[in-house]
Amino acid sequence: MGAAFGLLLVLGSIVIGAHGFLAFFSLEGLLIVVGGVMAVAFMSFQASDVHEALVAISTMLKDSPTTYEDLRGDMMNIMKWARLVKERGMRELEASIGKNWIDDDFVRYGLNMVVSEYTPEEVRSMMETAADACYERDSVPVDILQTMASHAPAFGMVGTLVGMVTMLCHLDGDTSNIGSNLAVAFLATLYGVVSARMVYMPAASKLRQKVEKGRFRNQLITEGLVMLVNNKSPMYVQDRLNSFLRPENHDYYNVFGKPAQIYKELRHAA
Amino acid sequence: MGAAFGLLLVLGSIVIGAHGFLAFFSLEGLLIVVGGVMAVAFMSFQASDVHEALVAISTMLKDSPTTYEDLRGDMMNIMKWARLVKERGMRELEASIGKNWIDDDFVRYGLNMVVSEYTPEEVRSMMETAADACYERDSVPVDILQTMASHAPAFGMVGTLVGMVTMLCHLDGDTSNIGSNLAVAFLATLYGVVSARMVYMPAASKLRQKVEKGRFRNQLITEGLVMLVNNKSPMYVQDRLNSFLRPENHDYYNVFGKPAQIYKELRHAA
Amino acid sequence: MGAAFGLLLVLGSIVIGAHGFLAFFSLEGLLIVVGGVMAVAFMSFQASDVHEALVAISTMLKDSPTTYEDLRGDMMNIMKWARLVKERGMRELEASIGKNWIDDDFVRYGLNMVVSEYTPEEVRSMMETAADACYERDSVPVDILQTMASHAPAFGMVGTLVGMVTMLCHLDGDTSNIGSNLAVAFLATLYGVVSARMVYMPAASKLRQKVEKGRFRNQLITEGLVMLVNNKSPMYVQDRLNSFLRPENHDYYNVFGKPAQIYKELRHAA
Amino acid sequence: MGAAFGLLLVLGSIVIGAHGFLAFFSLEGLLIVVGGVMAVAFMSFQASDVHEALVAISTMLKDSPTTYEDLRGDMMNIMKWARLVKERGMRELEASIGKNWIDDDFVRYGLNMVVSEYTPEEVRSMMETAADACYERDSVPVDILQTMASHAPAFGMVGTLVGMVTMLCHLDGDTSNIGSNLAVAFLATLYGVVSARMVYMPAASKLRQKVEKGRFRNQLITEGLVMLVNNKSPMYVQDRLNSFLRPENHDYYNVFGKPAQIYKELRHAA
Amino acid sequence: MGAAFGLLLVLGSIVIGAHGFLAFFSLEGLLIVVGGVMAVAFMSFQASDVHEALVAISTMLKDSPTTYEDLRGDMMNIMKWARLVKERGMRELEASIGKNWIDDDFVRYGLNMVVSEYTPEEVRSMMETAADACYERDSVPVDILQTMASHAPAFGMVGTLVGMVTMLCHLDGDTSNIGSNLAVAFLATLYGVVSARMVYMPAASKLRQKVEKGRFRNQLITEGLVMLVNNKSPMYVQDRLNSFLRPENHDYYNVFGKPAQIYKELRHAA
Repeated sequence: MGAAFGLLLVLGSIVIGAHGFLAFFSLEGLLIVVGGVMAVAFMSFQASDVHEALVAISTMLKDSPTTYEDLRGDMMNIMKWARLVKERGMRELEASIGKNWIDDDFVRYGLNMVVSEYTPEEVRSMMETAADACYERDSVPVDILQTMASHAPAFGMVGTLVGMVTMLCHLDGDTSNIGSNLAVAFLATLYGVVSARMVYMPAASKLRQKVEKGRFRNQLITEGLVMLVNNKSPMYVQDRLNSFLRPENHDYYNVFGKPAQIYKELRHAA
Repeated sequence: MGAAFGLLLVLGSIVIGAHGFLAFFSLEGLLIVVGGVMAVAFMSFQASDVHEALVAISTMLKDSPTTYEDLRGDMMNIMKWARLVKERGMRELEASIGKNWIDDDFVRYGLNMVVSEYTPEEVRSMMETAADACYERDSVPVDILQTMASHAPAFGMVGTLVGMVTMLCHLDGDTSNIGSNLAVAFLATLYGVVSARMVYMPAASKLRQKVEKGRFRNQLITEGLVMLVNNKSPMYVQDRLNSFLRPENHDYYNVFGKPAQIYKELRHAA
Repeated sequence: MGAAFGLLLVLGSIVIGAHGFLAFFSLEGLLIVVGGVMAVAFMSFQASDVHEALVAISTMLKDSPTTYEDLRGDMMNIMKWARLVKERGMRELEASIGKNWIDDDFVRYGLNMVVSEYTPEEVRSMMETAADACYERDSVPVDILQTMASHAPAFGMVGTLVGMVTMLCHLDGDTSNIGSNLAVAFLATLYGVVSARMVYMPAASKLRQKVEKGRFRNQLITEGLVMLVNNKSPMYVQDRLNSFLRPENHDYYNVFGKPAQIYKELRHAA
Repeated sequence: MGAAFGLLLVLGSIVIGAHGFLAFFSLEGLLIVVGGVMAVAFMSFQASDVHEALVAISTMLKDSPTTYEDLRGDMMNIMKWARLVKERGMRELEASIGKNWIDDDFVRYGLNMVVSEYTPEEVRSMMETAADACYERDSVPVDILQTMASHAPAFGMVGTLVGMVTMLCHLDGDTSNIGSNLAVAFLATLYGVVSARMVYMPAASKLRQKVEKGRFRNQLITEGLVMLVNNKSPMYVQDRLNSFLRPENHDYYNVFGKPAQIYKELRHAA
Repeated sequence: MGAAFGLLLVLGSIVIGAHGFLAFFSLEGLLIVVGGVMAVAFMSFQASDVHEALVAISTMLKDSPTTYEDLRGDMMNIMKWARLVKERGMRELEASIGKNWIDDDFVRYGLNMVVSEYTPEEVRSMMETAADACYERDSVPVDILQTMASHAPAFGMVGTLVGMVTMLCHLDGDTSNIGSNLAVAFLATLYGVVSARMVYMPAASKLRQKVEKGRFRNQLITEGLVMLVNNKSPMYVQDRLNSFLRPENHDYYNVFGKPAQIYKELRHAA
């Protein structure tokens, strides 16, 4: 909504100033800026990664759900498993998970390692490597979008230079249409700057936040599953996982008064 | 005051040069620069974070209190608790804190972990994770302000390009008002640079310092509470916490002469 | 293909705008931009490294095979060796490898260290040093290409300045060919930007990805060979190596249902 | 001297070119560039830190003494203390230092910790935290000067834009004084670039070197005092501290021939 | 040779375009660009370091010998010493080195520490500190050259601004020599860009590579001498040192066939 309002201001001011948008269209400029950025992207990266980056642009405006809710769900699951392991043993956890297929690949991989009776250090190093591999792979489209954002103004400049060279070459005495030619040449620069700032950069920023949240979540899950292997008490698991949230969102059994919400829910569910 | 004086110089020099401010107002330029920056901010980040960044701009000019005083208060508290634990045991600390509600979420979380009888390593890793989560979250508005500072000149350039394209398109023989049109077009660049340098950048800088101070304080508190769990002597706690201050601000019992101020205060308070 | 399409857009738009490519050729500009970049590259780096970087430009457009397949082959080999060591001992591995010459220098070095009866820590530190030395050395051509990408626009500017100074010096009254002279001067800037963005940068990006993949593979091999020395079970080796893939590509014996593809293949091959 | 010669070249060339300095003075430009930079500095940082940065500018030209001599003095002291501790015990060191007040806050803090009978690890962590706190605090004025260096050209551009807008607004037919107005407008850019390059940047560089040297010295002192607690032999202390110097400045008892200078001095002094 | 060819292209193209070099000489521009860069360098760094950086410029074009040969020599020495220590003990090494004075300061320091009977950890930490001190000190001239490269274009701009302000101030009706004045003004920018790109940057790059190679060599020597203290077998020393080379340059006794060249040489020499 804030974005819509801001855009409205920009467009409105252009309409006021220029009496219409028609003067702001140049097919050549558009082709050079968009075509150049696409060409370089496909030359620099694997096609499948570029496609992923382009998809990220289209989903940019949808507001991603807040982290807190997701993390809470993951925390609830880990605490349930911790209680199960503590009370009824690792085999019971294996049986319980066998019944309910887990969608998330990372969690499923982690649980497989947990029930395979590896040591906590082994499970930790395996899950950390897997989380790193995930993160490196997910970061590629972010890099692509940032590269695109840096190429767009450069190709805007290319378009303007092409326009000016063309104009200067056909300059023969009459200077009547220098103005409009120059205007058209400047449009390429405008396209380059605007596309970089209003398309590629916001998309890169949104995607980077999503990837960082994914990494944070994987850290939490790694920490949680290693605690399962260590056979820690559900209380400790809860306290440890809470540390991943900001202190004002912590939800623990406060010995100094405030009762923990999540603990009550768990007790209820049990 | 220094800031006010500097601003006075800048504005004064403009008045002297231009005989008034009226020539420096352009609605279009303002709309494009402010609207563009806002639009991109809301497109790139979650709305709540952008709001926080905007609030930071408004509180920018208030001088934050110096770190030293805050840290001293925190140090006094930790030393009191250390003495309590050493002399009368952990249960007494729990009782004492139960009576006085602690406002600070981070300290309260830490004390809960301290009295939960976890090992020092467990308390340290929990508090470090919590401090990191805090810091990552608090850094987001700083990132937003820095992004805004980088977008403002770009949208200033967009405004100038829009103005020049408009002017060049309506150029028909009479060149009498090229000058004033060009002047108006340049104003957008001026707005972009000035808003970046005098609004977004100082706000980002002030906020970053505040966030860094918060992180430093959380490190001190983490170190202090872990020493409570380790049941260290109040003397050691004092010496260790002093290391977080600059040597000239240290306040310890100097065996070579100078008596420690803070130690006397504590003795007084006890 | 995406790259070809993008290039087509750019070139097409130039043809539409300028009625031909002839106006876009300037020998001087080309010599300054290409010659300057080459001169600086050879002045800044060893000739053999620059040659390697130039070769990388020519192989830029070939799509490198995906990582996943390569890693799978390496994983299969390590798992075979792990089974051999576990079932028939280290001497048998030595004999088996003695028969089949291994092409890859890094793997051969690693296996030599494995059968030399060094401790796992010794093997790890040796292989990590070797992997780092590889990576440092392979990164040099990437640095060279990035340096070239930064020099090209600068020499484009040099060419334009040379053109303008020449033009301004021979300016004697008649201004009829200022336009075409200026056009030629601008071409150098155009060459600089286009060569940086469409040649040096994509080549640097492609090469960097290749080098990073090589490093990732060497990490996987290091981890795998150290497990051979540690005499780990083939099952553990498989699970550990899987962690280097993204979770959705993992191929392990899922205790919760899905059978592992790779494990079946191995059983088949055995 | 080199700096004076370089400055002479620059100023001389301006005199030759412009027949005097008068043409290069513009009150407006100066006010905008200096005032703007000051205003932003006071808006971005605490006033006391900005004052410290401004003081650093004024002391910029004084050549700081070379590191080697300072470090030698500190090394001599630590070796004296090491011999004292080894030969006559920690209490004797305490007594000896009690007689001679030590000016340096960091060394005094460290010695207090040494004689407090903490473990070497405790002393190390305390001194490292103190050194870090020192360094973080000392780096603030460097940051301020670097920020100023980045703001100066921007405000130069602001001054030029203000000058051009003013000129363009009062453009009414007669173009006789466009030239001199434009010249005045350009002066602001000149002031911005020159002040950044010849004032703020060299001051930041000098100050940064000083701060880095301070950090290096504190590392050496930390290492030395921890060796006191470890009760290491004076010979080892000497060899270890030598490692902080460059090999060609090392001054140790060379078993292969060359006698150590410093060791002889010590023997002399003893 | 590649550099010479590139330079030829650039200069040739200027001759073709401008019919001679005379038009490209401007004393003022040269004085401002060279004088400004020198002045700032001497203002920002200690005079001795700046001299070292200037010397590095003059030695830039000499091709440094390849690393591989140097490292091989160092490896041979370390392996000889390792064999000596293993077969005849540390005292024999001391005697043997006492006879042949070792030129290299770092190696001599390291050997002194080796024969001083310190623990491997002590020797490692001493040599690592010495290597770091070396590296920090050697990096200063690289920093200076990079700073110069960033200052040169800025002073080019200063020269152009000075030229333009001078021209605009003396603009009185006749516009006949605007062109040549402007040409002279532009030359300063040209000098700034060309000196940065063809002098300071290549020199910085060459010097940086030399410094990095020195650091790499010091790491190898540190690792090697620590192995002497650890009394490792010559075979292990050889294998460990080989890991510092790229796998295709490794020269070890390949159990799978290829005999090691270096080992044979050693046996020969023995």
